[in-house]
Amino acid sequence: MTDKLQVAVAGIGRMGMRHARHFATLTPRAELIAVCSPVQAELDAAKNEFKGVHTYLDYEDMLNQEKSLQAVVVSSATTVHAEQAIKAIDRGLHVLCEKPISTSPEISQSVVDAYAASIKKFPNQKVICGFSRRFDASYRDAHRRLATGEFGTPSVFRSQTCDKLDPSGFFVAYAEFSGGIFVDCSIHDIDLALWFFGEDIKVKSVAAVGITAVQPDLRKHNDRDNAVGIIEFYGGKIAQLYCSRMMAAGQEDCTEIFGTNGKVAINTQPQLNLVNLYESTGIRREIPPDYYGRFRDAFITEANEFTASCLDNTPPPLRLDSAVKAVTIGCALQESLITGKKIEFGEDGDLLEVTSGSLIK
Amino acid sequence: MTDKLQVAVAGIGRMGMRHARHFATLTPRAELIAVCSPVQAELDAAKNEFKGVHTYLDYEDMLNQEKSLQAVVVSSATTVHAEQAIKAIDRGLHVLCEKPISTSPEISQSVVDAYAASIKKFPNQKVICGFSRRFDASYRDAHRRLATGEFGTPSVFRSQTCDKLDPSGFFVAYAEFSGGIFVDCSIHDIDLALWFFGEDIKVKSVAAVGITAVQPDLRKHNDRDNAVGIIEFYGGKIAQLYCSRMMAAGQEDCTEIFGTNGKVAINTQPQLNLVNLYESTGIRREIPPDYYGRFRDAFITEANEFTASCLDNTPPPLRLDSAVKAVTIGCALQESLITGKKIEFGEDGDLLEVTSGSLIK
Amino acid sequence: MTDKLQVAVAGIGRMGMRHARHFATLTPRAELIAVCSPVQAELDAAKNEFKGVHTYLDYEDMLNQEKSLQAVVVSSATTVHAEQAIKAIDRGLHVLCEKPISTSPEISQSVVDAYAASIKKFPNQKVICGFSRRFDASYRDAHRRLATGEFGTPSVFRSQTCDKLDPSGFFVAYAEFSGGIFVDCSIHDIDLALWFFGEDIKVKSVAAVGITAVQPDLRKHNDRDNAVGIIEFYGGKIAQLYCSRMMAAGQEDCTEIFGTNGKVAINTQPQLNLVNLYESTGIRREIPPDYYGRFRDAFITEANEFTASCLDNTPPPLRLDSAVKAVTIGCALQESLITGKKIEFGEDGDLLEVTSGSLIK
Amino acid sequence: MTDKLQVAVAGIGRMGMRHARHFATLTPRAELIAVCSPVQAELDAAKNEFKGVHTYLDYEDMLNQEKSLQAVVVSSATTVHAEQAIKAIDRGLHVLCEKPISTSPEISQSVVDAYAASIKKFPNQKVICGFSRRFDASYRDAHRRLATGEFGTPSVFRSQTCDKLDPSGFFVAYAEFSGGIFVDCSIHDIDLALWFFGEDIKVKSVAAVGITAVQPDLRKHNDRDNAVGIIEFYGGKIAQLYCSRMMAAGQEDCTEIFGTNGKVAINTQPQLNLVNLYESTGIRREIPPDYYGRFRDAFITEANEFTASCLDNTPPPLRLDSAVKAVTIGCALQESLITGKKIEFGEDGDLLEVTSGSLIK
Repeated sequence: MTDKLQVAVAGIGRMGMRHARHFATLTPRAELIAVCSPVQAELDAAKNEFKGVHTYLDYEDMLNQEKSLQAVVVSSATTVHAEQAIKAIDRGLHVLCEKPISTSPEISQSVVDAYAASIKKFPNQKVICGFSRRFDASYRDAHRRLATGEFGTPSVFRSQTCDKLDPSGFFVAYAEFSGGIFVDCSIHDIDLALWFFGEDIKVKSVAAVGITAVQPDLRKHNDRDNAVGIIEFYGGKIAQLYCSRMMAAGQEDCTEIFGTNGKVAINTQPQLNLVNLYESTGIRREIPPDYYGRFRDAFITEANEFTASCLDNTPPPLRLDSAVKAVTIGCALQESLITGKKIEFGEDGDLLEVTSGSLIK
Repeated sequence: MTDKLQVAVAGIGRMGMRHARHFATLTPRAELIAVCSPVQAELDAAKNEFKGVHTYLDYEDMLNQEKSLQAVVVSSATTVHAEQAIKAIDRGLHVLCEKPISTSPEISQSVVDAYAASIKKFPNQKVICGFSRRFDASYRDAHRRLATGEFGTPSVFRSQTCDKLDPSGFFVAYAEFSGGIFVDCSIHDIDLALWFFGEDIKVKSVAAVGITAVQPDLRKHNDRDNAVGIIEFYGGKIAQLYCSRMMAAGQEDCTEIFGTNGKVAINTQPQLNLVNLYESTGIRREIPPDYYGRFRDAFITEANEFTASCLDNTPPPLRLDSAVKAVTIGCALQESLITGKKIEFGEDGDLLEVTSGSLIK
Repeated sequence: MTDKLQVAVAGIGRMGMRHARHFATLTPRAELIAVCSPVQAELDAAKNEFKGVHTYLDYEDMLNQEKSLQAVVVSSATTVHAEQAIKAIDRGLHVLCEKPISTSPEISQSVVDAYAASIKKFPNQKVICGFSRRFDASYRDAHRRLATGEFGTPSVFRSQTCDKLDPSGFFVAYAEFSGGIFVDCSIHDIDLALWFFGEDIKVKSVAAVGITAVQPDLRKHNDRDNAVGIIEFYGGKIAQLYCSRMMAAGQEDCTEIFGTNGKVAINTQPQLNLVNLYESTGIRREIPPDYYGRFRDAFITEANEFTASCLDNTPPPLRLDSAVKAVTIGCALQESLITGKKIEFGEDGDLLEVTSGSLIK
Repeated sequence: MTDKLQVAVAGIGRMGMRHARHFATLTPRAELIAVCSPVQAELDAAKNEFKGVHTYLDYEDMLNQEKSLQAVVVSSATTVHAEQAIKAIDRGLHVLCEKPISTSPEISQSVVDAYAASIKKFPNQKVICGFSRRFDASYRDAHRRLATGEFGTPSVFRSQTCDKLDPSGFFVAYAEFSGGIFVDCSIHDIDLALWFFGEDIKVKSVAAVGITAVQPDLRKHNDRDNAVGIIEFYGGKIAQLYCSRMMAAGQEDCTEIFGTNGKVAINTQPQLNLVNLYESTGIRREIPPDYYGRFRDAFITEANEFTASCLDNTPPPLRLDSAVKAVTIGCALQESLITGKKIEFGEDGDLLEVTSGSLIK
């Protein structure tokens, strides 16, 4: 009998396939035993790449038949994240669920509730939402330095997620189910704000504006291709976010945390690697083409730390409830983006009924 | 008779004295002939530094007695900028007025009106507001590149002005008359937004939040030490601003303009000079201690170009009416910062009556 | 039966232990089955870390008893590299030998000769010298770009290896057997010069000078703590090297290749990660503390590619004979450093008898 | 009567015209009164640009007729630098002589000797050689920091001067009189080495190699387009130089000084200004097109400080004798470059007769 964590991956599209690889070959303490997908071609590809892996067209079949299964990575379409996560949770399986848990705060909360109920029966169970940036070496270095107090109290947060411009129209189709640019892209930045400010912090208000500079068709899904938002927290902290689908140079994700005694900046000088090219047009460097180019190592660390937490019964590397808070803020920003209203929250976290933005002369 | 522009400087405090130096020694086509200040010690210092310069305790005395005077640099307290500017304008003098013209949009507009009236009599008269960043080599390079269209349509603008932390309490006293952090600091960023987006652009809404992280006493003057704001323009353009009085490392002013086909970034890797220090703690570089350390060359260029415009009767290097728009946006952001309301504008530029941010459960 | 490459590591000091880890846990297609060391404590540590690994005090015992052994990583003291490599080669095992093969060109050549003889019997055998930088993503990117011809003909090469200052005296003791700073440190830079210029290139002359700025005791082993050298190649190419043991900030290894149409620079802006710290003293970033901090990923790639080459019988990722050339150049530089003489080579590669540097007035 | 320094410029080619401008309009305490050139068109251009300036076809005519003349800037062809400088020196005029004084150490020394003789009669006389980098803000910052001792003893020096590739053939024609790439380009780097190591330091040996990668015709003037050299100084200090005429990106001059306790790097991340361009090919910045683009401010500072030294009778900003040492080292490097010999010096500064580099098998 092996002492490796027995893992299945649900959903093996682009990102799911990467998760499968990370667990199959780059996580020494884990073993990939099964994958599922409604698409037979994806299963065939997985079978080809991962010798001996079991494949399933149906998620529940997989859960039922894989008797040795210990952990599930939910990397299917966002719309089924919560449902699949809850099914695994209810069986006492460890779960690593891709972000966001759901585009709805309520559904996201239902996963947290399911976990809270389940853990009474399965006290060693680990359930996390895969906010990959939390596993990035640079973000961790920044967090560790801020935690020393050397930079004073973190007070202002700025973060941006700029995806490479994709003229194919992919983002328009994708917007139908993504929950909108703030829920899909900025969710990472919001999670970072919570991490750097402290996950018990409470949101006070959000406001956002946006445009469709390159993809006007996004409007039919109530989405934008560029948006900026501000978040006010109780306790004297503020955040500014920028998300975009039109960066020419590649993936540009950067974050700054301004403390009362200094600033920590992550990736404000983006780069693909350590190479600089001196050409007749000047000096050039490339940047990663997409988020995976930027965060591959973080995903691998995520796989390894999730595995270690499950096997060693140590605390999970991040809190699940925080993921609900991130979705809530993301949805509020998205609503503000579309309605033009500033949205306020009471100290108890309740959304306040606001009338704003009416155009009365 | 000399063919050099005969210049007087009104107000020779810290910045006024620098203007005096620029015109006296670093603007070959100008001659500093007079300065005024209500503070005798300042006049004595000027007399000592600038041989033969005439000194006045009273502004109007200076205007009356300096018969050869051609141009006035208004660098006195903000509260008298407009009044002094108008007095010089009415006499047909060229005027370089420090920013902001006023902390009131209405008073700012009165200077524009005075100029519009005066120029009928004095068709060669030049009146500008001294937005020094417009004269900075890097900002100009950025503007020129964007103007080529190579980067597509400028659509998103991000800019920040972070002053070095001054624990002396200076900023608290200063806040009484500064108009607030958005009017005092971000006015430069707002002016840049107008310059990069096109000065005929119209503001649609603003929203801002802020905190007092290091200087709680700022609240008694309705000000904050850190604030973030978003500006929405008609025509599908948005801007995000950050202003701060607590940067540990020095002056950090940077700007990014995101076009539909690329981005131009100015000073996102701030530095004092070209030196890097390799020490046991890593690699370190310093940044300018204050805005003058960063923009000294721009001020000198400003002096030279203003002088050239006056002497050669060429178009002034920037439009005066744009300065009123900048003040209007700055004041709206400041109001939003304090009231918590989002503020909206009609396409005609009128402020709209908005009810927002009310805390109704 | 497993299809994983069965690997043993000979010598499990600091670097050997890292190799063991890479093959045990970060090379999915390899399996670490045995280690040897003359130090029992090292074997105990390995036994503890790698479950089931076999341990040996004697290298030949290991070769004799591990019947399934396929590949050996030679990471023992440099003085036994060649001997251990040859013993493994003669048995038809694949070998990854740490650099340098030997501090003697002749002994280095004997390994190449042994391989040449052995491969006739074992045509699939792979033997490489572990020049880790060849596996670094940035160096590879640079090499690929230069290979396109876009930067013209690589003509001038500059490279430096600066170790962090170690005031413990370690480097003095180490110098007794290291072969000297050019053979120990610059061997990497020399290997890169050969790689970027083409491994068939022939050295024409070398000259070097050096000092003992911080470790005067190095002189008793005919070594220096800082040295600069120049290499002239037949065919119109030149290289400049700098090696040092006194960098305060950490490990600083950088390389530039000047082509006739541009330059490619690797790591001329060294950094630990993507974090910048804004403090009252300016902006600071750290750099890796040592070569492993800089090249860990390269070592892991090396392990994986060596494994793949052995299992798939594909060409080894680098040529063994090139390693002899690197040692030859390194030894000549070291001799020039100590004697003050410029050293010249004929086109056939023979060392020429030179009289130079004599102090005749 | 004016109290401005009365200045003439001898030689108003490309660089001379710039000197003329600096003194005419950017040096408040100086007045440009005359220029001379053997080329009438140059005189016409100067007359047009500088109102009232006197023009001369003959240098001595100028000296004879300009009775109020106080200082001469020698910016003519290098071949007449020394002769013109000595003529001015003998009349007691202040002299700013462009670098190098001469391509011959002996002739360079003759200017120092003339000054030494003249200063007995004219004790306030100032004569300097215009090593512009000494006036650059970044180099000065570096020098000041090293002087504090914070970085330990400066021990290793690296510097490079890379000119932009000029395919016109200019550099070939220029090489006939330039003295060679080490005397023309690296003279600046050598001067910096002397400045950072201390101007009383003594050279022990030099060795150099070079190639003609892009301009083979340089060989007919015994020159190269790329060369690297090493300098050994008595007292345990070493320097490495690289000079090139083939940089694609523009002017790239950088310098590093390695102290026993840290390193100071100047311009190792070259840039035109503070702008970064994010394009589909990555992030790009430009660098200055030529040395004037890089050092314009330094030339202006040079003009102002030379003027101040003359008017206020303060010590000249740099020592003249050091310029002879720089030429001596530059010539030795050039000789080593061409002959392939390492060249050695006695502690008394005498060149030693060396036999080296002979190809005896």
